[in-house]
Amino acid sequence: MAEKIIIDTDPGQDDAFAILLALASPEVELLGITTVAGNVPLSLTHRNARQVLELAGRSEVPVFAGCAKPMAVPLVTAEHVHGATGLDGAELPEPVMPLQDRHAVDFIIDTLMKEPGGAVTLCPLGPLTNIGTALTKAPEIASRIRRIVLMGGGLFEGGNITPAAEFNIFVDPQAAAIVFASGVPIVMMPLDVTHKVRTTRERVERIRALDGEFGAVTAGWLDYFERFDEEKYGTEGGPLHDPNVIAYLIRPDIYDGRLCNVEIETESELTKGMTVVDWWKVSGRPANALFIRDVDDAAFFSLLTERLAVLASATSVAPRQRVGA
Amino acid sequence: MAEKIIIDTDPGQDDAFAILLALASPEVELLGITTVAGNVPLSLTHRNARQVLELAGRSEVPVFAGCAKPMAVPLVTAEHVHGATGLDGAELPEPVMPLQDRHAVDFIIDTLMKEPGGAVTLCPLGPLTNIGTALTKAPEIASRIRRIVLMGGGLFEGGNITPAAEFNIFVDPQAAAIVFASGVPIVMMPLDVTHKVRTTRERVERIRALDGEFGAVTAGWLDYFERFDEEKYGTEGGPLHDPNVIAYLIRPDIYDGRLCNVEIETESELTKGMTVVDWWKVSGRPANALFIRDVDDAAFFSLLTERLAVLASATSVAPRQRVGA
Amino acid sequence: MAEKIIIDTDPGQDDAFAILLALASPEVELLGITTVAGNVPLSLTHRNARQVLELAGRSEVPVFAGCAKPMAVPLVTAEHVHGATGLDGAELPEPVMPLQDRHAVDFIIDTLMKEPGGAVTLCPLGPLTNIGTALTKAPEIASRIRRIVLMGGGLFEGGNITPAAEFNIFVDPQAAAIVFASGVPIVMMPLDVTHKVRTTRERVERIRALDGEFGAVTAGWLDYFERFDEEKYGTEGGPLHDPNVIAYLIRPDIYDGRLCNVEIETESELTKGMTVVDWWKVSGRPANALFIRDVDDAAFFSLLTERLAVLASATSVAPRQRVGA
Amino acid sequence: MAEKIIIDTDPGQDDAFAILLALASPEVELLGITTVAGNVPLSLTHRNARQVLELAGRSEVPVFAGCAKPMAVPLVTAEHVHGATGLDGAELPEPVMPLQDRHAVDFIIDTLMKEPGGAVTLCPLGPLTNIGTALTKAPEIASRIRRIVLMGGGLFEGGNITPAAEFNIFVDPQAAAIVFASGVPIVMMPLDVTHKVRTTRERVERIRALDGEFGAVTAGWLDYFERFDEEKYGTEGGPLHDPNVIAYLIRPDIYDGRLCNVEIETESELTKGMTVVDWWKVSGRPANALFIRDVDDAAFFSLLTERLAVLASATSVAPRQRVGA
Repeated sequence: MAEKIIIDTDPGQDDAFAILLALASPEVELLGITTVAGNVPLSLTHRNARQVLELAGRSEVPVFAGCAKPMAVPLVTAEHVHGATGLDGAELPEPVMPLQDRHAVDFIIDTLMKEPGGAVTLCPLGPLTNIGTALTKAPEIASRIRRIVLMGGGLFEGGNITPAAEFNIFVDPQAAAIVFASGVPIVMMPLDVTHKVRTTRERVERIRALDGEFGAVTAGWLDYFERFDEEKYGTEGGPLHDPNVIAYLIRPDIYDGRLCNVEIETESELTKGMTVVDWWKVSGRPANALFIRDVDDAAFFSLLTERLAVLASATSVAPRQRVGA
Repeated sequence: MAEKIIIDTDPGQDDAFAILLALASPEVELLGITTVAGNVPLSLTHRNARQVLELAGRSEVPVFAGCAKPMAVPLVTAEHVHGATGLDGAELPEPVMPLQDRHAVDFIIDTLMKEPGGAVTLCPLGPLTNIGTALTKAPEIASRIRRIVLMGGGLFEGGNITPAAEFNIFVDPQAAAIVFASGVPIVMMPLDVTHKVRTTRERVERIRALDGEFGAVTAGWLDYFERFDEEKYGTEGGPLHDPNVIAYLIRPDIYDGRLCNVEIETESELTKGMTVVDWWKVSGRPANALFIRDVDDAAFFSLLTERLAVLASATSVAPRQRVGA
Repeated sequence: MAEKIIIDTDPGQDDAFAILLALASPEVELLGITTVAGNVPLSLTHRNARQVLELAGRSEVPVFAGCAKPMAVPLVTAEHVHGATGLDGAELPEPVMPLQDRHAVDFIIDTLMKEPGGAVTLCPLGPLTNIGTALTKAPEIASRIRRIVLMGGGLFEGGNITPAAEFNIFVDPQAAAIVFASGVPIVMMPLDVTHKVRTTRERVERIRALDGEFGAVTAGWLDYFERFDEEKYGTEGGPLHDPNVIAYLIRPDIYDGRLCNVEIETESELTKGMTVVDWWKVSGRPANALFIRDVDDAAFFSLLTERLAVLASATSVAPRQRVGA
Repeated sequence: MAEKIIIDTDPGQDDAFAILLALASPEVELLGITTVAGNVPLSLTHRNARQVLELAGRSEVPVFAGCAKPMAVPLVTAEHVHGATGLDGAELPEPVMPLQDRHAVDFIIDTLMKEPGGAVTLCPLGPLTNIGTALTKAPEIASRIRRIVLMGGGLFEGGNITPAAEFNIFVDPQAAAIVFASGVPIVMMPLDVTHKVRTTRERVERIRALDGEFGAVTAGWLDYFERFDEEKYGTEGGPLHDPNVIAYLIRPDIYDGRLCNVEIETESELTKGMTVVDWWKVSGRPANALFIRDVDDAAFFSLLTERLAVLASATSVAPRQRVGA
C-alpha cells in the first residue's frame, strides 16, 4: 500500500524534483503540498508548487499556503542560490490551478486527525515553520505522525549558510527544535548525504533527453541550480538535496545512516541553527533521529531518471491536459 | 464605544478577577475568552474560565481552548501558587456551558480579520503561546491588533519564578519574544506595578461582603491566593496581578509608566524569560512597550469592588440563570 | 588591629574618594594599590592612583599596574562619565612617585601568600580582571583571602551601562564570574546602595570647605562627576559609588543587606554582565555574597567628611612633603 | 637556525611523543616546557613532563608548573583515555630533576619579552589556560609571538568530548577564545588531521624495536593510548594527536590546510568549546588560523620513528646519565 505523505516545501529547483519524483512513484500517495517561506517568500513558493504540479499534469493535488515567516526570527531567503523566482532556469506559465483556502498548518493538523494514527508521513523540504506551528497548535498530532523524513542539517559537512548551520534549519531554528524534541520518528537527509548526490554532466544530459517540455524544463533547473555550488565547492555538478527525501521512501536500501541524538542549537550567535549530531555517542543523550550519511548515488540517479521518464512520457502525450479541468 | 477585547488566560484566581472586572465594565466588550496552558494545564484553564463565566451568569461568552504547551520548551505550571485546580479557595460546580470547537488561535485570527482593522485589543493574562502562534500562523494580523495589554515581566522587582524572570514570560519566552518584536503597540503590567496592588485585610473583607455566593467565592480565592506571596514577601496581603490589565483599559489615568524598549531574553539559562527593560534609555534601541510602574492602588480597589458589586447584585437576583439556557 | 587591604582600582573620581577614605582611616592598613583598565585605560589609572596618593602626601604606598584589558572581551571605558583623564574636575601635577615594577597580579598573589591566611581583604573598585587573573594563575590564593568587598552589580536598580548590567561587571564578565565562583566571602556594593549615597549641594559644599588644595580638588571632582548622573536620573547630586567599599570596612553597622546567591551572566548579548541576584531565594542556589541594599547615607557622608578633614588638615600643614623624598 | 619553541602541555602519552620529537630534532630549540591541568591534574602533568625529559636524558630543559584549573569553568580531565597517571602504559621512576620555581605564565611572558620579537613559537598541546592567562596578564606579548602551533579543535570530524567540541578547547573555551582573538598567527592541528595519523600494528612495532628502555616505554604508551579510540571508532590503531604540532615545524610540506576564520564558541551548552571553522568562507569573517586538514601520514611516521631512533640510541649508550648530574 502506498505511504501517504504531505510534502511541506519552499520550491526551489531541488524541491521541484522531489515533488516530481513523488508524483511519479506509486509507492507514495501525495495527499497535498503545504508551502512555507524559505528559499523564496511564501507568495512565490505556493506559486512554484502549483507550476510544478501543472507541469506534471497533476493539478488535482491540493496546494496550501502556510507560514510567511519563521517563528521567532526574521526571514532569510536564498535567491543567490535559486534565483529571484526560486525556480530560475526555466520559464513556466503562471499556474491556473487554485491555491486552497485552508491554511497549511490546518491541512496538516486536519489530515493527521482524520487519517488513521500512524498513517501519514510528513516530508519537509524547507524550514520547519509549518510543522513546528502545527505541533504547537495541536500537540496531539505528534503521536499520529508515522514519521518525518526531512532534508536539513549536517555534521561532517558543516553548514552552508553559516560555518555551522544548514539553510533549512538555520532559517527557523525554533521550529526545528520543536520538531526534533517532538518524539516523532525522524529521518534526516543532511548535507552529508545530499553532497554525495551530484549533478554531473552525464546525469544532467540524461534528464535533458526526457520527452517534450519536461526534459528541457528540468534540465534547465539543474543547469541553473548547480552553478552556485559548483563555484563554491569547485566540483563538477552541484548537490541535489531534496529529492533524497522521496527517494528514501521508495528505496531506503540505497541509503545508510545511524540512529543518534540530534539537538538543535537555538541560542548562540555563532552556531545558531546547527544540528548537533552525536554520531559517536559521547553525550549519553538518547537517539531521536536516523541520520543518513551515505547513498548509492548512481542508484539514486537511475531511480530519478526512470521515474521522471514515465512522467515525461505521460505529460508529452497529453500535455497539461488537467489544467483548468 | 466599548473597546472590543479578547482575554487570553490561564485562570488562576487573579485571572478570574480580571474576567469578572471585564464582564462588569461597559467600557469593554468581551468578544471571547481564549485559554492557554500556564498556571495549570489547558484542560483546567478552559474549565476554570467557564466556571468564572457561569458564576457571573454570562455563559454566552464563548470560550476557546488554545495551546496545551509552550512553543519550544516544556510546560512549567504553578500549582504551588494557585492550587491543584488553579482556582483553589472556593468550590464551584463543573461548568455546563460548552467549550467552543474552534481553536483559540483561530478564534483570535478570525476575529482580527473579521473586525475592522485596529478595533480589537488582546488582553493576555498568561503565557503568550496562543498570541505567538497566531502571529506565526498569520503574520498579517499584527497590523490589525489595536493593542496588546498584558500582564507579565518585571524590572525593578526582578522575577518571581527565577531571580530574573516573571512566570508568564518565563513559561514561553519564545512566544513572548514574538509578541514584543511584532510591532503591535504593547502596554505591560509587570510585577513592578502589580506588587503595589495588595489584598489587605480590609480590601478582602469589602469583597467578602458582596452579595450572595459571589462575595464568598471571590474572597475565598483571595484568601487562598495571597497566602503564597504573604509568606514569601512577608507582607500583609499578596499582589493581585491580572485585573490590572482590565483596570488599565477602564481607568488608564490611575496608572503611570514609561515608553521604553523591552526585549525578551530567550538564550541564557540564568536569565531566560527576563524582560530586559531599558528604563534609563542606555541601549539606544527604540521603544516598543509602555512599561507601567505605578498605580493608585486605592483607586484600583475601589474600581474593582464597585464593579464586582454590580455583578454580584445582578447574579444574586437571578443566580446562574443563563447556564444551560 | 587594622584590617589589611589591597585596593584594586581604575580611578575614577569616586575611586579617588575610596582611596582617600582608606588613607584617612586607622581601621584599615592599605598594603598597596593595584590598578586595572576600566573607567579609563591602564596607563591613566596607575597615574591617577599615584596622583591621589601624592595629594594625600602618602607616596610610600606602592602602586602596581595590572591588566590592560579584560580577560575575554575588548575593553569598554567610561570617559563620558569620568572625563578624558578619569579624574576630570581638578588639575593635579604629574605624579613623581614611581610605578612599581611588579605586575599587579603578582603583588596580589605574593601578598596573599606572604601574609597569614585570612589576613588580607581585597577591595576591587573597578573591573575584576586583576583578581580573576590572580585566581586563575594561583587558585591557592582563594582560601587565603579574608574577604572581597567590591563595588559592582545591581538588582532592583537594573544596570547603568546596559539595561541589565552595571559597568564594572559588564567590562569583564568572565573575571567577575571567576570571582563569584571562587568561594571567597564576598560583600557587594551594588547600584542599589550606591544610588542612595547622593552628593547633594550641601554635602559637596562641606567637602569644598576642607583645608587648602584638598577641598578644592575633591569638590572639583564631585562637581564634574555628578553632572552625568544628575542629567540621566534627574536627581540633585549623583551617586558616589566606590567609597562605600571602604566605609563598609569601617562602619558596617550603617549598611544593611542580605546573604544571597549571585551569579554572573556571561553568555547572552542582552544580559551580559548582569549580576543575577536571588534576593527572594527562588533558585535554590546557595548564597555566595552579601548583597548590600541599604545605607544610612547621612552617616556615610559624616564619616567621609570627617575623615577627609583630618587628611586635609595634615596635608595643608605639610603639603606634598613626601613627594620625591 | 633552529626555531625557538616553548611546549605548553598536559602529558598525556601523545604529548610525550611531541616532547620527544622536539628533543630529537635540531630544527627546533626547546626553551622550556610549561605544564597545565588537562588530561590529568597539574600535579601529574609537571611530573610527567619531567619523566619524559629524564627518559630522553635531557633534564636540563626547565619545566614550569602553570594554571591548575581553567579560567572560568571547573576542570574536566581525561583519565578514561590516558589512565590515572596520564602516562599509563609504561612504568617510569619518579623524576629527580626539579620543577622550576617560576610560574609557567611568567616563564612564557619573560621569555617572549627577553627574546627578540618574533623569535619564539608557542606549541600548546593541551588546554590553553596558560597562554590565555599570559595574554591577559601581559597583552604586549601578542605582537612578540612568532606563531602559535597548537593541537585542538575539529571541523569535519566533529568533537571527541562532546558532539561538537574537541577536548583541549572544551576544557578551557574562554582561554581558547582569547588565543584565537589575539591576532597571533595560528596553525591548528585539529582532529581532522590527527585522526589521519593512526598507530597501526606495524607502526607500533617499529617503535617497539627502538633501542633499550626507549622502545619498550614508548610502545607501551601507544598500546595503552590507542585502546580507547580503537574501541570508540572501530579502527586499527588510534590517532596520535600532539606530535603533529612538532612535526609541522619540521616538515610543513607533509601537511595541507586552509587559512580560514575560526571562532570559539563559549556560550551555548550544546556547542561550548566548538571551533567554528569557516572552511567554505560563508561568514565574511577574516581568516585568523591555518586549519590543517591533511597529512602524509606515512611521512609523519617515518619522521617520528627516525628521530626517536636517534634519541633511543643516544640514551641507550648513556642511559639517564644526566639525571641528578
